[in-house]
Amino acid sequence: MTGRDGGAPLAPIGNSPAVVLVRPQLADNIGAVARAMANGGLFELRLVAPRDGWPQEKAWRMASGADRILDAAVVFETVAAAVADLHHVLATCPRPRHVVKPVLTARGAAAELREMCARDLRTGLLFGPERAGLDRDDLAHADMLVRYPLNPAFMSLNLAQAVMVMAYEWWSAAEDAVPRRLGTHETRVATKGELERFLGHLTDELDECGFLRNLPKRPGMVQNLRHLFQRGEVTEQELRTLHGVVTELALGRRMRGRAE
Amino acid sequence: MTGRDGGAPLAPIGNSPAVVLVRPQLADNIGAVARAMANGGLFELRLVAPRDGWPQEKAWRMASGADRILDAAVVFETVAAAVADLHHVLATCPRPRHVVKPVLTARGAAAELREMCARDLRTGLLFGPERAGLDRDDLAHADMLVRYPLNPAFMSLNLAQAVMVMAYEWWSAAEDAVPRRLGTHETRVATKGELERFLGHLTDELDECGFLRNLPKRPGMVQNLRHLFQRGEVTEQELRTLHGVVTELALGRRMRGRAE
Repeated sequence: MTGRDGGAPLAPIGNSPAVVLVRPQLADNIGAVARAMANGGLFELRLVAPRDGWPQEKAWRMASGADRILDAAVVFETVAAAVADLHHVLATCPRPRHVVKPVLTARGAAAELREMCARDLRTGLLFGPERAGLDRDDLAHADMLVRYPLNPAFMSLNLAQAVMVMAYEWWSAAEDAVPRRLGTHETRVATKGELERFLGHLTDELDECGFLRNLPKRPGMVQNLRHLFQRGEVTEQELRTLHGVVTELALGRRMRGRAE
Repeated sequence: MTGRDGGAPLAPIGNSPAVVLVRPQLADNIGAVARAMANGGLFELRLVAPRDGWPQEKAWRMASGADRILDAAVVFETVAAAVADLHHVLATCPRPRHVVKPVLTARGAAAELREMCARDLRTGLLFGPERAGLDRDDLAHADMLVRYPLNPAFMSLNLAQAVMVMAYEWWSAAEDAVPRRLGTHETRVATKGELERFLGHLTDELDECGFLRNLPKRPGMVQNLRHLFQRGEVTEQELRTLHGVVTELALGRRMRGRAE
């Protein structure tokens, strides 16, 4: 505890997994882990035998306001003690050799954890020290292993990055974010009728100015314009702008026509 | 360029998006971004007007061997120049207000990028400066926006973490990682026949020693043991160990029986 009052008003959102850092070396990383946890909605941090002791001022400096997670972090001497009250323990392990346990992807792990937490089971995620990762004794405490799908040619994953991926998947597993939507804010996507009225306006003016005078090609040209505007998911506000553009361009042409 | 020869032998894997850091402030972060890129199989780094100039020795120290990405990074003065040769540009934007563009999740963006890259289109991902993020002029260069599903109560996402999530999704989109599998390595999951032979061995010895002497309860007790071993996805090697355990325990009992 540092006795600070600062930072974001972070409060646990329901039952969520504890993040257990096993023999972490750098306080900077512990702070960055807290920040990543807050990003993904994880709140309970446990430290097993942090190399440089605890608390470390540096951690709070790196947490960017995730102070409350650090304030509430609990230190344990052994992995066994850190997981004693948990029902299920998952261990991150980039190369799960010689260990016969179910291996999950980060996404698969998030789904399992969500399911366990919904059943009011207490769960934890083990992350190993910066260089070496978890050793075989650590892994023996885990029910399942988690291996991220990442570039096997470059496996050096920063500790906070490892927590970030898991925290991101934890949050994603609960959020029904559609993979793609149009953000329209104060306006809305135009209806087909509104689009049709604009295309009518445009076609009239293009007929008027002679742009569509090649009658055999006219249907294809009109259709191409229609395809272009259909594709763009035009908003009602943008259509009003486009009406104005066409009107003004045509008006300018007529004025010049008169002047000439 | 720093003229170094160090770092991992990173080579681009096919056509992949360029990571464009717009007005990045800290060289540490640029190095951490390179590391995250290598983790997720991204290789092309572009820097728009880095605040402290470029190159910066600190970046290489933070890259943990992703030196080649930094060595090959190209600096541009404007976003327009940095994206001029690209066909599609996505911009990360935590709060896409007042901008009418399709908004993708990180996962949706990875799928779009994979699809575009497969069509040999050159793509790029814009990331804004550490504090402020991309401004409206920057966003105007993007076809689509990317918003990560993360805790809205704690949006402060480190630059390298933002790149990590996108790099992770980029790699995940191509890897057919099953969400859960048992890692068995040099051994394999036991067949039902092997499991049956072990359960037969165990039951015989338990009959012998009298553990199953309550005949009305016997079928239920045998079934419970069966359920336990079925659930554990026992391997062939573990079954051999269990055979040995049962044999030795029974033998010890018999020896003591004789001695008594």
